[in-house]
Amino acid sequence: MASMTCSAGDLAQLLGPNVTNSTGAAAFICSQFHIAANNFTATQYAVDNTYLLFSAYLVFSMQLGFAMLCAGSVRAKNTMNIMLTNVLDAAAGGLFYYLFGFAFAFGTPSNGFIGKHNFGLKAFPTSSFDYSYFLYQWAFAIAAAGITSGSIAERTQFVAYLIYSSFLTGFVYPVVSHWFWSVDGWASPIRRHGDLLFGIGVIDFAGSGVVHMVGGIAGLWGALIEGPRIGRFHRSGRSIALRGHSASLVVLGTFLLWFGWYGFNPGSFNKILSAYPDGSVYYGQWSAIGRTAVTTTLAGCTAALTTLFCKRILSGHWNVTDVCNGLLGGFAAITAGCSVVEPWAAIVCGFVASLVLIGCNKLAEIFKFDDPLEAAQLHGGCGTWGVIFTALFATEKYVGEVYPNKPGRPYGLFMGGDGKLLAAHLIQVLVILGWVSATMGPLFFVLHKLKLLRISAEDEMAGMDLTRHGGFAYIYHDDDDESQKPGNIQLGKIEPTSTTSSADV
Amino acid sequence: MASMTCSAGDLAQLLGPNVTNSTGAAAFICSQFHIAANNFTATQYAVDNTYLLFSAYLVFSMQLGFAMLCAGSVRAKNTMNIMLTNVLDAAAGGLFYYLFGFAFAFGTPSNGFIGKHNFGLKAFPTSSFDYSYFLYQWAFAIAAAGITSGSIAERTQFVAYLIYSSFLTGFVYPVVSHWFWSVDGWASPIRRHGDLLFGIGVIDFAGSGVVHMVGGIAGLWGALIEGPRIGRFHRSGRSIALRGHSASLVVLGTFLLWFGWYGFNPGSFNKILSAYPDGSVYYGQWSAIGRTAVTTTLAGCTAALTTLFCKRILSGHWNVTDVCNGLLGGFAAITAGCSVVEPWAAIVCGFVASLVLIGCNKLAEIFKFDDPLEAAQLHGGCGTWGVIFTALFATEKYVGEVYPNKPGRPYGLFMGGDGKLLAAHLIQVLVILGWVSATMGPLFFVLHKLKLLRISAEDEMAGMDLTRHGGFAYIYHDDDDESQKPGNIQLGKIEPTSTTSSADV
Amino acid sequence: MASMTCSAGDLAQLLGPNVTNSTGAAAFICSQFHIAANNFTATQYAVDNTYLLFSAYLVFSMQLGFAMLCAGSVRAKNTMNIMLTNVLDAAAGGLFYYLFGFAFAFGTPSNGFIGKHNFGLKAFPTSSFDYSYFLYQWAFAIAAAGITSGSIAERTQFVAYLIYSSFLTGFVYPVVSHWFWSVDGWASPIRRHGDLLFGIGVIDFAGSGVVHMVGGIAGLWGALIEGPRIGRFHRSGRSIALRGHSASLVVLGTFLLWFGWYGFNPGSFNKILSAYPDGSVYYGQWSAIGRTAVTTTLAGCTAALTTLFCKRILSGHWNVTDVCNGLLGGFAAITAGCSVVEPWAAIVCGFVASLVLIGCNKLAEIFKFDDPLEAAQLHGGCGTWGVIFTALFATEKYVGEVYPNKPGRPYGLFMGGDGKLLAAHLIQVLVILGWVSATMGPLFFVLHKLKLLRISAEDEMAGMDLTRHGGFAYIYHDDDDESQKPGNIQLGKIEPTSTTSSADV
Repeated sequence: MASMTCSAGDLAQLLGPNVTNSTGAAAFICSQFHIAANNFTATQYAVDNTYLLFSAYLVFSMQLGFAMLCAGSVRAKNTMNIMLTNVLDAAAGGLFYYLFGFAFAFGTPSNGFIGKHNFGLKAFPTSSFDYSYFLYQWAFAIAAAGITSGSIAERTQFVAYLIYSSFLTGFVYPVVSHWFWSVDGWASPIRRHGDLLFGIGVIDFAGSGVVHMVGGIAGLWGALIEGPRIGRFHRSGRSIALRGHSASLVVLGTFLLWFGWYGFNPGSFNKILSAYPDGSVYYGQWSAIGRTAVTTTLAGCTAALTTLFCKRILSGHWNVTDVCNGLLGGFAAITAGCSVVEPWAAIVCGFVASLVLIGCNKLAEIFKFDDPLEAAQLHGGCGTWGVIFTALFATEKYVGEVYPNKPGRPYGLFMGGDGKLLAAHLIQVLVILGWVSATMGPLFFVLHKLKLLRISAEDEMAGMDLTRHGGFAYIYHDDDDESQKPGNIQLGKIEPTSTTSSADV
Repeated sequence: MASMTCSAGDLAQLLGPNVTNSTGAAAFICSQFHIAANNFTATQYAVDNTYLLFSAYLVFSMQLGFAMLCAGSVRAKNTMNIMLTNVLDAAAGGLFYYLFGFAFAFGTPSNGFIGKHNFGLKAFPTSSFDYSYFLYQWAFAIAAAGITSGSIAERTQFVAYLIYSSFLTGFVYPVVSHWFWSVDGWASPIRRHGDLLFGIGVIDFAGSGVVHMVGGIAGLWGALIEGPRIGRFHRSGRSIALRGHSASLVVLGTFLLWFGWYGFNPGSFNKILSAYPDGSVYYGQWSAIGRTAVTTTLAGCTAALTTLFCKRILSGHWNVTDVCNGLLGGFAAITAGCSVVEPWAAIVCGFVASLVLIGCNKLAEIFKFDDPLEAAQLHGGCGTWGVIFTALFATEKYVGEVYPNKPGRPYGLFMGGDGKLLAAHLIQVLVILGWVSATMGPLFFVLHKLKLLRISAEDEMAGMDLTRHGGFAYIYHDDDDESQKPGNIQLGKIEPTSTTSSADV
Repeated sequence: MASMTCSAGDLAQLLGPNVTNSTGAAAFICSQFHIAANNFTATQYAVDNTYLLFSAYLVFSMQLGFAMLCAGSVRAKNTMNIMLTNVLDAAAGGLFYYLFGFAFAFGTPSNGFIGKHNFGLKAFPTSSFDYSYFLYQWAFAIAAAGITSGSIAERTQFVAYLIYSSFLTGFVYPVVSHWFWSVDGWASPIRRHGDLLFGIGVIDFAGSGVVHMVGGIAGLWGALIEGPRIGRFHRSGRSIALRGHSASLVVLGTFLLWFGWYGFNPGSFNKILSAYPDGSVYYGQWSAIGRTAVTTTLAGCTAALTTLFCKRILSGHWNVTDVCNGLLGGFAAITAGCSVVEPWAAIVCGFVASLVLIGCNKLAEIFKFDDPLEAAQLHGGCGTWGVIFTALFATEKYVGEVYPNKPGRPYGLFMGGDGKLLAAHLIQVLVILGWVSATMGPLFFVLHKLKLLRISAEDEMAGMDLTRHGGFAYIYHDDDDESQKPGNIQLGKIEPTSTTSSADV
């Protein structure tokens, strides 16, 4: 909102000496305007915080989405394990991000590489951010860790999980978000001091690169170093699908992620009460936010439909879990450019994202790479496409409105802009790939060498829930539950039926 | 909000020639008021868009509710099929509604029958609607398709589903919403040009008719033409309940629909920042919105309790899935009148809705009509009751406040109004019945004649998930999954156990 | 927001006789300010109602969370029963709270013990509360009943449930909320007339005492009087865990409760558009609301992590359902003080809450107290700790901002305040314990004596779903469903497998 500045001195002069009490009249009038100005300021903060808080709650609900998607996508015998990792992403992430993650990411003033203020929310709120902003960024941070836990599901020691997850949420991810999103980051489009990278910075609006590539590449290294689950590839080399135990949970999780993505993408504007200067009176940030929700929707919808028909041709049936993954791939891809592309471009984005996901899955099969959630392919692959897509389709008008701090910047190559944005985005891809590989790769490797990464073959066959988490996740009939028989104790038993598949490999 | 208009010329004259610089002083003062006026305008848009966007997200969450409700209400062997239709309602609906559905419904200016502007969101945003409005209306459109998919569950070819769903979301439903909700619709209460139908138009505030009757009647024709599922009625004529496979999913879906209905009904105001002229300072559209949430709640609660006790008497037990359906029937009924009736009237609405649903279910049994979700009965039957109810109980005061464009209009018959509103609403019932029957009926019939509608008896017995969708939705024990045994492939096998019930009929 | 008051008379005098039309000019200017003032008032109501309504929807979603948590925590044979109670908490609660619950709680003016106005929302909206406030309070009321239904799960007659639930939501809980939250309550910190208790009143911001203790203590008496479930304690005295049937539902429910708690705690401010007088321009109620969301998050996260490691040491495995309960215990504890403590104190709160829960569970085992949801321990125990915690850690600054009606009041003992707040809070603990025991205890006892409380041993072994609710909640294979075989009817059969565990004890 435009600021109001009533100068009583100026007004008094305009009224002049013939007015009985020109100073009093001017002060009287200006005092009213001062009240109005303060009211507008308070309104601005209240409306923007309301918007950001509820957006943060939506993003948080994605953690539930991840939990259900992951649970449904693994075999029943590992359900408790994967859900525990999802609960702990949020819980441990809450503490670490409070203690230092937020400070590394957004603490300011700082250098271009890492933040160094506001540890433990010290000096909050500041003129730059309020508690709502911390909450919103925390919900993003735990999403990255949630992605990675999918890649290494069903075979990872719980202790390894605790270690890498804390490292990712507390350090690796915050540093990346500092680079691209903070006012001090070396590649940030809202950089306050110094030149922007290629005169524009990287436009990764809601994090196809910062969140999805980071989570996906971390998962790639984890899954590569661990190797595939027992039984995933036959001796002959044939790929054997180890199907998840509940399609209902997969669909539940997918819809919840869809729901939460409306906080993730449109919410990344942070503020809604902002008129755009040259637009009509009804055109402002609220329009850009609505448009972002629309581009997000269209990219996901297109990717879902494309996947439906492609997989029908490839596999001969209509597969709901594939459609769900395609949908999420479309969302992961549009996340970078959602605010700066036209709705029709989002359809292009989703269409290609679906093909990227199918291609990545094909590659994974060829290289015998096993990711139970397709997380590396989906978030890594489609996330990378999203970063490139933005550099091709960002429009001049929208870039100028969403990033008003520097007018006249480069925009999408196919929209008539030059190649500078593409250059910046290619650098983003390389840098994220390098940084996450250089930090998470060695970590997983050391854990592997210390025998802390993968569980034993016996435990893997029996399932982690029985051996590590106190029992099987489901008891649909009383006689399923051995613990209710006299003399039995719950832990340490191996369910006989679960050894079937091991003999095959 | 009232608009501010400071005329510097007028003010300068009032100040007069003795003021040192009367023109300057007036311009100074008015410039401040202009800033304030612009700030108010921006605030109005930001607040209203925030309200509408989050309402849209809530309505979208109903799609998840439908998916879970449908999944839980069908047999396990058709879970993947029904969930896929729910995902595709949203996905295909997104594309079709973007390309032409919205234009048919709300594109303006247009004739009274169908809209003809804004295809592919061309010229968005306009002074009439922003992207948030499109998103909100899309979420409504996919709800209608979701209703229908329940009626024909467990026996419909997937290709038939793709065809009718696109036709319904892209054409049949948008036309109906144009008639009753757009500023050009022939029966709309907010019609801009020409007379209102019976001097009032139809008050179907959030769509008992436009959404629920449309979805329900489409389902009625589909289910009628397909006929009942195998085993649903015994040779002797006795009705056999084919119980859904998971009451937990039914309750989950019901609660999610309840949650989302707070976006559906109160959200239909679209704007919240609007004071009512003659009220106290604290009384405005925000009050009407709160009241709408209360009437919605009370109607659902009353219908749930009524169903609980009625079914206890009729069937001898306390049935949670019946209570869930009763609850939803109450919601479907109050949807038309939620904004214009007193809270006590909502209790009447819910009470009768429960009886209507029980009656419709009795009729369905007598006529051997099989609707796995009771969707035709619930949305069609209770929706129709809701339309009538509104014509009886709408109060003069609330009608005037919610539809201020034409003062002094007719209102509810029992509230002292005359019968004009009832006449208009009876016409709505007949017109929706006629239109949906004339479009969806022939469509289903042609699909039926082309052998594209119903699956084969073998496939129906085996379940659609195994034959069409790549496998059973659940694998709770490793040895349940045939595909993990060496040499097996996933598709084409028939689960032996699932043929049991076919022999009985 | 500050109110604007432009006096045209005063301004006219200041302009004086030399101004051509000083009265006209002053009236002109003031009329503009009046429009602005009215616009601000409307903005205030619209923004605050938007905030409160969506918070209410979030709190309502907790009912879904309870339903899923309860369902997952009981054995499969009682799933329908417990879910029905959760649906009815909301439904019956809606009617009773509308008819008289709200009036008892907040009807004003009234005495300090019970409210006596606004039955059936008469005279709504008032200058004190709008419909949104009723909706918000209703969502709280049904939460209390939801807690209790967990304690007495798996063995309580459905009729007993209907009776105690109505009594609790319609009378017991409203009276408590009147005492501590209404402007007339004898121990309320916002009391309008008369002295505050110990000069401060009780600071139970979102209800660790009012909601969680009430629900927990009611459950305590119910579970005590009913006694443990068959098989819960072995003849030898050994405790046997009767594990819930679905960990997925437990995690789903827990995350939904977490999600909803952002409506419960930050939403309890009711209004968001309010600048704090002495703060910077960016500091206002929106900051306090954000901080409340942060303290809530940190308390839950800390409790979850503490429980994880403590239970690992105690039981030898990493248990996801224990972590979920720990998390919820942290939330229940921070609820009282969430708005008036520093984020670091919330970590202390969560840490101790975890230990309190573990201790209470140990005690329960020793005394052979059986609460299937640990509800009495979790909500009663951690809720009590939360009330005490607030009296120790509330800061002077935050107490002054959140409760501005009386400056200079006592605050937390460890924060440099004196012991008055602690005295007030100890009285709250005793009074709630006494009131709930004096009302719910006798009620459960009379039901017990009338043989209306507990089901028969046969029914308990067979499961309540089969005997009372029309069948088993799940049918994963067609041959599971006896009702589909010819000649069978659904009711009255006893599943043979479910009698296994009874013989063992």
